[in-house]
Amino acid sequence: MAPSEFDLISRFFSKPEVERTDVILGVGDDCALLRVPPGMELAVSIDTLAEAIHFPSGTDPESLGHKALAVNLSDLAAMGAKPVWATLALTLPRSDPSWLEAFSRGFYNLARRYQVQLVGGDTTRGPLNITVQVHGLVAPGRALRRDGARPGDLVAVTGPLGDAGLALLALQGKFGPAPLDQAMRRRLERPLPRVESGQALAGIARSAIDISDGLLADLGHIVEASGVGARLELERLPLSPGVAAYVKDRGDWSLPLAAGDDYELCFSIPSELRTEAEASALQAGCQLHWIGLIDKEPGIRCFSAEGQLSTALLRGYEHFRHS
Amino acid sequence: MAPSEFDLISRFFSKPEVERTDVILGVGDDCALLRVPPGMELAVSIDTLAEAIHFPSGTDPESLGHKALAVNLSDLAAMGAKPVWATLALTLPRSDPSWLEAFSRGFYNLARRYQVQLVGGDTTRGPLNITVQVHGLVAPGRALRRDGARPGDLVAVTGPLGDAGLALLALQGKFGPAPLDQAMRRRLERPLPRVESGQALAGIARSAIDISDGLLADLGHIVEASGVGARLELERLPLSPGVAAYVKDRGDWSLPLAAGDDYELCFSIPSELRTEAEASALQAGCQLHWIGLIDKEPGIRCFSAEGQLSTALLRGYEHFRHS
Repeated sequence: MAPSEFDLISRFFSKPEVERTDVILGVGDDCALLRVPPGMELAVSIDTLAEAIHFPSGTDPESLGHKALAVNLSDLAAMGAKPVWATLALTLPRSDPSWLEAFSRGFYNLARRYQVQLVGGDTTRGPLNITVQVHGLVAPGRALRRDGARPGDLVAVTGPLGDAGLALLALQGKFGPAPLDQAMRRRLERPLPRVESGQALAGIARSAIDISDGLLADLGHIVEASGVGARLELERLPLSPGVAAYVKDRGDWSLPLAAGDDYELCFSIPSELRTEAEASALQAGCQLHWIGLIDKEPGIRCFSAEGQLSTALLRGYEHFRHS
Repeated sequence: MAPSEFDLISRFFSKPEVERTDVILGVGDDCALLRVPPGMELAVSIDTLAEAIHFPSGTDPESLGHKALAVNLSDLAAMGAKPVWATLALTLPRSDPSWLEAFSRGFYNLARRYQVQLVGGDTTRGPLNITVQVHGLVAPGRALRRDGARPGDLVAVTGPLGDAGLALLALQGKFGPAPLDQAMRRRLERPLPRVESGQALAGIARSAIDISDGLLADLGHIVEASGVGARLELERLPLSPGVAAYVKDRGDWSLPLAAGDDYELCFSIPSELRTEAEASALQAGCQLHWIGLIDKEPGIRCFSAEGQLSTALLRGYEHFRHS
């Protein structure tokens, strides 16, 4: 029988842009067949980007293809795992070759960077919904979990916080009047997951998470899972000039603390491994920023030059949450 | 911060209904951590059910939970793989506890049957869209692929064809007037994947596929991937009394040949292994039905008592396709 419109879409993704020797059978059968090296653990994560929730209608499809893979690779980074394979479930309102060409270009450009092979997928008609599952490998006992933080650990992040939030405010016309900087816009639409840094800190850090929902929410997951607390020195947060100006002008820390979507990593690291951690991160092309301390008191307390920020204020940041 | 409405949904799926020893870390971190036994290959498949495409609005959520997992397990069955883990990406228009309770009941009841552990997921707000990825294990070289059929192989299916299509026609009011039989309705809404049969025939059959798009389309994938053809004896197709009556009354073979959604398996099996295949399938609780022969002539030719069905007629069955 003649292939349907959606069979043709599937074929668009069946050309192997990356070919790995651990893929026995890729796209095109009922399942992919994959080989996990003996002794390695398999790390998997699945994430959806839905229109109007995670991105506005009309978002550039090349950015969507990039970001759908990036947010998943960020989860592997947060475990210290090496990315190997991905699957893609794509629900589309219509078959639009130019949209698909751009989407797949964004997806494959990032996939090639990390030698991630697309091994399976499904294409369906319906409201735009993009689900990616990634698969990574990590040596036994080296995975960075959320529940390993201990009092006395130092808290580090891999890069500036709040850029994606600032870019979103600018795109929504809620902040200006200067035109949105291209670099800032890429921080929102084409985040680069900290894959190398996560692997470099596996075996050194005690816990890790990626900052997708904002530093307070995500570090909150670490302290809750670990049964500890944390204090943050806000003046130590790495901020781009734009975010620093926003914080100073408005006296409002919500962008770096709660806007999320930055996909930097947050680690807790034993203080005696500080130098080793910095050296390993630098090898991976990343400078660590030390922003606080794990302690025994539940919750997260934030201190600035003006003293401790009120908990009530921090609760207000919930409105930034994406879902 | 207070958990959002959608965090609460996620917690609904975080209780481990099945606990496997090969799951090092399940739901609740950035990734799940999984252990593949040495020497085994990993089989993965991802499939989406979208509202209005794969099921009508208002479909019973318990059936949706069952079917979302069943259609994926059917892909593992078609590879001869043993199911082990699943992930679930659920996009929902609203947080409705009774809907979720029923959906998860349907999902978990089937998961328990095969000892499949839910190891990760994502919950998003948006138009209803259910994506499941399943993971299975298969010994090296034993996976049943689409490209292994050889001229002279016998073609077998695991059970009656066309029931799901007949149930759909009845639900749409296009066929009646007798009320829809409960057993028939279950064939559409709660298909039981042929997991045991697939594993039983691994190492015996030369190729396999699950019949999701209809026998002609799916056997078509086998003959195309294998560079062969097939002839089918329509009188040999296993049919329930309802489908047999439909075919006889209307002189129309479209239900068993093209309606799909039955999730039976179709194998090609060397003729000298016929008895061994039958015995293995019976051990797995399934009777094989021999319906045709692989030959060298490309395409699929269908013969009934009246002679060969015209290709033009067969093309018409395309309107039954789901996507």
